[in-house]
Amino acid sequence: MAEKPLILISNDDSIYAKGIKELVKAVKPLGNIVVVAPAQPQSGKSHAVTLDMPLTYRQTKLDEDILSYKVSGTPADCIKIALFKILDRMPNIILSGINHGSNSSVNILYSGTMGAAMEGALHGIPSIGFSLLNFAADADFSTARIFVEKITRTVLAYKGKNNICLNVNIPYDQPENIKGIKVCRQSEGEWREFFSERFHPGNKRPYYWLTGNYKNNEPESSDTDEFALAQGYVSVQPITIDCTDYKMLSDLKKWDF
Amino acid sequence: MAEKPLILISNDDSIYAKGIKELVKAVKPLGNIVVVAPAQPQSGKSHAVTLDMPLTYRQTKLDEDILSYKVSGTPADCIKIALFKILDRMPNIILSGINHGSNSSVNILYSGTMGAAMEGALHGIPSIGFSLLNFAADADFSTARIFVEKITRTVLAYKGKNNICLNVNIPYDQPENIKGIKVCRQSEGEWREFFSERFHPGNKRPYYWLTGNYKNNEPESSDTDEFALAQGYVSVQPITIDCTDYKMLSDLKKWDF
Repeated sequence: MAEKPLILISNDDSIYAKGIKELVKAVKPLGNIVVVAPAQPQSGKSHAVTLDMPLTYRQTKLDEDILSYKVSGTPADCIKIALFKILDRMPNIILSGINHGSNSSVNILYSGTMGAAMEGALHGIPSIGFSLLNFAADADFSTARIFVEKITRTVLAYKGKNNICLNVNIPYDQPENIKGIKVCRQSEGEWREFFSERFHPGNKRPYYWLTGNYKNNEPESSDTDEFALAQGYVSVQPITIDCTDYKMLSDLKKWDF
Repeated sequence: MAEKPLILISNDDSIYAKGIKELVKAVKPLGNIVVVAPAQPQSGKSHAVTLDMPLTYRQTKLDEDILSYKVSGTPADCIKIALFKILDRMPNIILSGINHGSNSSVNILYSGTMGAAMEGALHGIPSIGFSLLNFAADADFSTARIFVEKITRTVLAYKGKNNICLNVNIPYDQPENIKGIKVCRQSEGEWREFFSERFHPGNKRPYYWLTGNYKNNEPESSDTDEFALAQGYVSVQPITIDCTDYKMLSDLKKWDF
């Protein structure tokens, strides 16, 4: 009998979030699972790594028969310490999430969930970040689990390029209302920031909470993740870790520096 | 007389690093400068933003006639708070650095310097991250300053696409030994991590420092930043904030999910 695939699971909402337990539940039949996830919430940590502090990790109990570790650092730290310290063989796939909240459009740049997935792809391991379009700590992940299982199964069966990386976003709805799975590109958009000003009770100095509204800069385009999600589809965006702007590259070669 | 360009400057090594002072010195003749930089070192912070804590900022003195602010957060936070809270008009260009150490190849994914530049590009402002291939706190930036000035001047004069973003790496050498400026794509490579184990003096529990060796996965390619730098060129990589893998996008559309 062939060895079951080794599935490494992480996230950014911490090992105590509901989303990571739901991810484990969704893919349990597909392989042997090891969880290596942050001990503390790491939302917005992007691809950050911890360089100015040492890391610690400790075995913990997430689910009765799942080997689980909590790490003092970021999602990308979790993947690094899993691959190069905790695991004795490379995983067949890395799954990150299920994130509480969307990682569509430019959110991917800030996302710790996607930082973990991209770190996996960097080391040549197929990696998927999953996000549910609901921020609530007690959100219902039952629809999400169906698509997580389906997409993970498909990627495990794929025999091509081994650093495939996917950003999967799942609408918050009943399964019968989901129109299907749509492969998309990243929407052009941005957060228009506002800084909510408050004052320290003692010294009266101001402090600011980062807040804002997302602005879709191409609402008319029909091939984007934002469009697919608004139509009720699960969006699947293939991700590259090569940040080169190839369109600009040829223009730039003609510049006279 | 036309208004001088407004130049916003940030970095990830903190407002107290030598590199940011050298960046100010290099571009001072080119416009009106405002510095908004982290109060604490932020190396490896990528595009992280601070969501779980409020931000504070305070005016400080970096150079006698430069308006300067230090911010409690990450490089990307600095750009957001500068654009949406501190400045009363949008800058004409955002410069980040000069980083103490290379941001070539996959280092860009972890780089706070480039996180600041990419945040600028996200808001449609031409942005450049500069890095010197030397980690020393007291490195000599005199060669770097020549190329920083030259490249900034060229980008300021450019009238095309307004979200141009460049990752510029500069060899640590005398000006006469630099062969020129080369436009490059990002090298494929990865950090092979090692975790240096130490033990807490009290409870004897282990802790780990992230360390490792960079592995260039395509040393023979001659169009990469790693190759250009090894040959003694300044490397200029155009950066995109669209993480979509377009090669994979068409393949993936044929998949049966």
